[in-house]
Amino acid sequence: MPAMTNGERAPAPDYGARLARAAAAAETAGVDAVVVGPSQDMVYLTGYEPLPLERLTALVVSAGAQPVLVVPELERPGALLAPGAPAVEITGWRDGGDPYHEVARIVGPAAHRLAVGDQLWASHLLRLERELADAEFEAAGPLLSVLRARKDPWEIAALARAGAAADAAFERLLAEGLEGRTEREVALALAALLVAEGHQTADFTIVASGPNGASPHHEPGDRRIAAGDVVVLDFGGKLDGYCSDMTRTVSVGEPAADVKATHQIVREAQQRAFEAIAPGVTGEEADRAARDVIDAAGYGEAFFHRTGHGIGLDVHEEPYLVAGNSHPLEIGNCFSIEPGIYLEGRYGVRIEDIVALTGDGARRLNEAPRDLLVVG
Amino acid sequence: MPAMTNGERAPAPDYGARLARAAAAAETAGVDAVVVGPSQDMVYLTGYEPLPLERLTALVVSAGAQPVLVVPELERPGALLAPGAPAVEITGWRDGGDPYHEVARIVGPAAHRLAVGDQLWASHLLRLERELADAEFEAAGPLLSVLRARKDPWEIAALARAGAAADAAFERLLAEGLEGRTEREVALALAALLVAEGHQTADFTIVASGPNGASPHHEPGDRRIAAGDVVVLDFGGKLDGYCSDMTRTVSVGEPAADVKATHQIVREAQQRAFEAIAPGVTGEEADRAARDVIDAAGYGEAFFHRTGHGIGLDVHEEPYLVAGNSHPLEIGNCFSIEPGIYLEGRYGVRIEDIVALTGDGARRLNEAPRDLLVVG
Repeated sequence: MPAMTNGERAPAPDYGARLARAAAAAETAGVDAVVVGPSQDMVYLTGYEPLPLERLTALVVSAGAQPVLVVPELERPGALLAPGAPAVEITGWRDGGDPYHEVARIVGPAAHRLAVGDQLWASHLLRLERELADAEFEAAGPLLSVLRARKDPWEIAALARAGAAADAAFERLLAEGLEGRTEREVALALAALLVAEGHQTADFTIVASGPNGASPHHEPGDRRIAAGDVVVLDFGGKLDGYCSDMTRTVSVGEPAADVKATHQIVREAQQRAFEAIAPGVTGEEADRAARDVIDAAGYGEAFFHRTGHGIGLDVHEEPYLVAGNSHPLEIGNCFSIEPGIYLEGRYGVRIEDIVALTGDGARRLNEAPRDLLVVG
Repeated sequence: MPAMTNGERAPAPDYGARLARAAAAAETAGVDAVVVGPSQDMVYLTGYEPLPLERLTALVVSAGAQPVLVVPELERPGALLAPGAPAVEITGWRDGGDPYHEVARIVGPAAHRLAVGDQLWASHLLRLERELADAEFEAAGPLLSVLRARKDPWEIAALARAGAAADAAFERLLAEGLEGRTEREVALALAALLVAEGHQTADFTIVASGPNGASPHHEPGDRRIAAGDVVVLDFGGKLDGYCSDMTRTVSVGEPAADVKATHQIVREAQQRAFEAIAPGVTGEEADRAARDVIDAAGYGEAFFHRTGHGIGLDVHEEPYLVAGNSHPLEIGNCFSIEPGIYLEGRYGVRIEDIVALTGDGARRLNEAPRDLLVVG
């Protein structure tokens, strides 16, 4: 493991430093205050993870002022336990009170540009827009996602642990065999294996057999897996707060020649995109590297989703490997590379790894074989 | 069971009728279109429950037009399986496309008042606000929550099944005894019992023993429950899509006289609020009925949250029993009644039932004893 990504001994999150970076980024962007609701943005900045609810919980960050966490009074004891609590001022509001007015007070009358967390509920944003009628609002995503996308070694190590656990769950699943089981049974078994391998939660387990594989987000059903099926397995969960997400496509029994050929195209596309990864390469260029292979093979129309998404505290976050993303990749970025080919009525093929862009180059965080595995 | 609330034979959701009611409500309110993202609003209107993600999924409802569900292309197969899919037009968009432009096209250039679902992400709302720069935006909550708060007999029956399952889980937990177990152990056991009794998910299991009970939303920890402890148990989950949520406070061994007295005050407050429930009574008046009892006993400051919240597809929804809510309760409304007294450093007491306001009057959907139960 390269020294750069050896995060085992790296320090755990310094929430004060993260908050300071967010405040500095806001100042640089000309944003007077950032208002973040319950979300992984809040987790990133404070370690606090309340449920998003109709009662407003909001973190207010601005340059030159201590960050303030506005919480319903009855959540205050929980907020005080958050690892980042010492870095923020916590202020409670009681049922019947007006937390929007409180946020406006904290932000101050001079604030005219506010950035709100991407996942803040519309009901809360609309109340803030009314309370701060003279201010302009924008999404805080562009500002915060740059910070969150620069994973430090500790975070990359956490993602690597999640990836290794997903690899291990996949290996155990294959040892069990797939033939004769329903998609749903396999999905439940895979979820249990993710947890057995250390995940706190198994968040999705796509098992798409035969023609169901032509739907990238197929919901596992009662179809019984039979010899000759191509099966797409796309699964992940959370381990120590960080996400896993991997896909392998396997053949139950010996694959037909066309399946082998399709799989080889996807594998080649995935490899080309991986090899294209470097600091300064844009998300669009990385997407293009995979897409060129599939286009050239004549399957361009059958690859109708982006090549990848960033991953970290959220399973989908910046940077996206997608047409139109002209932002350059940076050291610390972690993302999926997951091209696919979907043949309506026949089968699908997708191969997905999580990749970290480190100072030593791109590094895959999934190591399960990318060959077309033949299983029982 | 009164005939009015015998929903076992009532018809399952008619999504077309719900969509028509939403369109009519929008027209009455002068709203040109309602735009709902992934949420229980979407489940209510279509039976479709996608994850909220950065890729926009949005349901557009307006009078005089067929509802349109805008989905990422790769989610289309899943959307087509939703029970309400036949009542909507489904249109897909591909990565790299602009779903906000698509929503604007559907809404049409003449639209000037738009209501957006309360839980739509801010990032999506801000894009829509920019795309439809001449339109005014408001929260769809007031409009949709009136519809969702009028539960039909089928929905009340679903809530009653969830309530009965929570009652059964509670009874089994008490049979196991609490003394000597940690809060976390009891919370895990209670979650398992909720599932064993038919819940698809156990969503929260608050176990707050001794002084921890003074925090209404205490996170169960390593404190070991001992003789003499007062323990607040507040728990629930989802069964057939509808939520349970109940609270009981028990004494491990014989309670002290002051505990008995405090519990009796809360019980009286809960009963008074229940007796106050009738069509036309406001949420504020119902809150007041409970609060008056606790105020009169001198514990007003120790009851620092609202008396209740509506419940249905969401665990918190309209109507709220809270100061400032001057909306009258209606037949079909279902909500919690859950007064409490929280004594810092000592203990807490809360009693919570779900109550349905039916044509035959108020009906509790939890039947576990409300006495101060003495457990081992």
